[in-house]
Amino acid sequence: MHLVVICRIIGMLLMIFSVTMALPAALAALYDDGAMRAFGMAFVLTFGAGLVLRVISGNRQQDLGIRDGFLVVALFWSVLSLFGALPFYLADHPGLSLSEAVFESFSGLTTTGATVIVGLDELPISILFYRQFLQWLGGIGIIVIAVAILPILGIGGMQLYRAETPGPVKDTKLTPRITGTAKVLFYMYMALTITCTAAYWLAGMTFFDAICHAFSTVAIGGFSTHDASMGYFNSPLILMICTAFMLFAGMSFAVHFAVWHERRPLSYLKDSESKFYLGVIGFSVLLVSLFLIFTGTQSANNGLINGIFHTVSIATTAGFGADNFAAWPSFLPVYLVMLSFIGGCAGSTGGGMKAVRTMLVVKQGVREMKQLIHPNAVIPLKVGRHRVEARVVSAVWSFVAMYLISFVVITLVMMACGLDSLSAFTATAASINNMGPGLGEVAANYQSVSDVGKWVLCFAMLLGRLEIFTLLVLFTPAFWRRG
Amino acid sequence: MHLVVICRIIGMLLMIFSVTMALPAALAALYDDGAMRAFGMAFVLTFGAGLVLRVISGNRQQDLGIRDGFLVVALFWSVLSLFGALPFYLADHPGLSLSEAVFESFSGLTTTGATVIVGLDELPISILFYRQFLQWLGGIGIIVIAVAILPILGIGGMQLYRAETPGPVKDTKLTPRITGTAKVLFYMYMALTITCTAAYWLAGMTFFDAICHAFSTVAIGGFSTHDASMGYFNSPLILMICTAFMLFAGMSFAVHFAVWHERRPLSYLKDSESKFYLGVIGFSVLLVSLFLIFTGTQSANNGLINGIFHTVSIATTAGFGADNFAAWPSFLPVYLVMLSFIGGCAGSTGGGMKAVRTMLVVKQGVREMKQLIHPNAVIPLKVGRHRVEARVVSAVWSFVAMYLISFVVITLVMMACGLDSLSAFTATAASINNMGPGLGEVAANYQSVSDVGKWVLCFAMLLGRLEIFTLLVLFTPAFWRRG
Ligand SMILES: [K+]
Ligand SMILES: [K+]
Repeated sequence: MHLVVICRIIGMLLMIFSVTMALPAALAALYDDGAMRAFGMAFVLTFGAGLVLRVISGNRQQDLGIRDGFLVVALFWSVLSLFGALPFYLADHPGLSLSEAVFESFSGLTTTGATVIVGLDELPISILFYRQFLQWLGGIGIIVIAVAILPILGIGGMQLYRAETPGPVKDTKLTPRITGTAKVLFYMYMALTITCTAAYWLAGMTFFDAICHAFSTVAIGGFSTHDASMGYFNSPLILMICTAFMLFAGMSFAVHFAVWHERRPLSYLKDSESKFYLGVIGFSVLLVSLFLIFTGTQSANNGLINGIFHTVSIATTAGFGADNFAAWPSFLPVYLVMLSFIGGCAGSTGGGMKAVRTMLVVKQGVREMKQLIHPNAVIPLKVGRHRVEARVVSAVWSFVAMYLISFVVITLVMMACGLDSLSAFTATAASINNMGPGLGEVAANYQSVSDVGKWVLCFAMLLGRLEIFTLLVLFTPAFWRRG
Repeated sequence: MHLVVICRIIGMLLMIFSVTMALPAALAALYDDGAMRAFGMAFVLTFGAGLVLRVISGNRQQDLGIRDGFLVVALFWSVLSLFGALPFYLADHPGLSLSEAVFESFSGLTTTGATVIVGLDELPISILFYRQFLQWLGGIGIIVIAVAILPILGIGGMQLYRAETPGPVKDTKLTPRITGTAKVLFYMYMALTITCTAAYWLAGMTFFDAICHAFSTVAIGGFSTHDASMGYFNSPLILMICTAFMLFAGMSFAVHFAVWHERRPLSYLKDSESKFYLGVIGFSVLLVSLFLIFTGTQSANNGLINGIFHTVSIATTAGFGADNFAAWPSFLPVYLVMLSFIGGCAGSTGGGMKAVRTMLVVKQGVREMKQLIHPNAVIPLKVGRHRVEARVVSAVWSFVAMYLISFVVITLVMMACGLDSLSAFTATAASINNMGPGLGEVAANYQSVSDVGKWVLCFAMLLGRLEIFTLLVLFTPAFWRRG
């Protein structure tokens, strides 16, 4: 372990992160919305803490190893989320308690989008902007980590992508080479954000709402500046724009890069994960829309629009709302929450277990049945034209198992915190899948959850965002042993 | 496929099975309880159908292959369960509809123990006996199939036991050699039933109740002759006797055989699966009892007895009741239902995914974390002192995945059948795990479930009892293809 270097990295990250508070501070000053002091103090505290860490950790250069990688990634989200809670805690409005402030910050930076605030429409403009910006930042953070760093750490079978990532990341040391990949991804993310802002703006949002919702759309975050979320705008056009950008942001940025680099849009159809992801969502859109229409719950027009929008919103783990889907009949609400376990593609801003892992699990199940019928045949497991290594398959299985075990344990803990079974189940699913809204008591917001429950859900969000293992390995004795 | 031979086997099985109706017919005649005509007709129909199948299939001898094995096992339970429904359907009392009769029969023969009958205490004695006898028969059926046949078919990693099964079953053809193993298992099962009957009788049950409850205890079935189940006897001694026999019947009969053969009771502690099974149940007993006592829900004495009895009853998937555990506070009811997913040991009468599979999944998860920290190390997966083959691990993973996917799909279907989320979730869990009682609407019985819902749950019981794959492979085109 190279704790000194890790300390320096976290220090630098905090100093950079403090800019996210300087920006709203300026906004608060400009509009005189009363939150300037809070952002100012938060900026000083965050920048100061970063500076202290940077100074005490000196300038010794060292190459980082695998373990340092785990620690940096885990600290990145937890330390930044804790400091990110400062403005929420310090501002007079919305006046959050410490647990609430931390919850809102974790929910933002992990792109979960679960909120404890009611009355968004009356909030200071700087606070609103800050919430959306946290999600945007969390989005680019996870893309860079998922595309450039996780494949190197080999988490949950993501070494699958080691050879396919854009840019020069085939090295196994966490050296500055990552910077090259990060830059490309950042430019793509920026371009997507600008396009999305323009589309929203042209469709009738104010410029402020357009940029704020573009932030949370490309991040698959789900935060909104209105309590009614996307329903506020009452515009099918805006819902369809949002749908398109969620679908796009839920696909791998490594694939986007390849398509853009080779100028071949049809390459999407060659990527197994993209096909699986679009297939599952396409099937679900049909199922949900037809069920809404044929049960007479909604008119053909509304059923189609709401079916498309909500299915994509939940399946990609964005979590934007328009209609009150928690009140939809029969199996629909639970079905949508179940979809969020599949989630987006690996290397996207989406949460969940990722489409590629679900696909591998299903393929392996089908393969096993063939094996049972032909016990002596050798049947390889393939993704596209490539045979998947046994080690990758085993890593994927372990990931899925640990994900589900974590989910069950946290659900039980949430019930011990006083939630009923449906609320506990969906609150945990919405958190670990970084999706946002649940059903029952947590359908609209998470205000009623106890303080302990809020911290547990923060842990669940972090667990999901860090692909389980990055966080869990830190709790094993073997991780801290020398050598 | 050797359909003619399969036809003959099913014919013979039906003729043997018809004896289970002749016995209650005699009982009905003896006590003149009004159900004699129903059992007589059911006997004639079942025996007749068996005879017809036997006669038309001739005497040609053929060795059966792997595929025939799947078909025989699947037909064994489904055909017998359908014919087994006849007495319930034909009897005036309890007067069940066709769907209800089929549900009760499937629930009996798969040792699930979910019931649609209220007013057990007033039922004809022959019907009561028949229900319990169905479970007993299902119990010995699954032991023989799990110990002697599934390892040959290699379902869900059970080839793990190919070398360890008692008797001469190392052949890969489903030849009459299985008979040898079956005989030994049957004697052990008989001995256990007799001991259990004696224990219940000495503890104060009537002889009829003692034998009936011994049937459903050693089968981990959970049917009772009283609406209040084990609570009827109001005797801590009986609850503890029941606990001991459930624990014992939930362990592998292959291990029991080995221990008995070598006269070394300590061998139980050498078996990894037994240790894991007892460890999980021990931990859960402590958790549940202490929670009941320290929250003031129950007195120390009651909390301990109820905690022990219900934890073992649900964790082994027996499903007997005493206290109303569905009304216990906080996470306890859902926790207990979750335990039933682990279930008994492989080669026992218990349901669920089986302890050995859960153990392998957890071990693999831990192994994966070590692998992440030491990417270049070769870390084998071991059970006891044996290294587990990659093929077995992959079969176990596929099993768990298919099990959970089936569970989720059936839960959604049950919600579409009108159940609320908790009832749908637990009804499906209780059925696929062959456990019995659920929570919510299905905590006491399954009367309120719609007809379609009842058939779906029958399918779930069969799916669980046949270790998923035995049934699922029959739905693949590859199974029916020649060659
Ligand atoms: K989200
Ligand atoms: K049972």
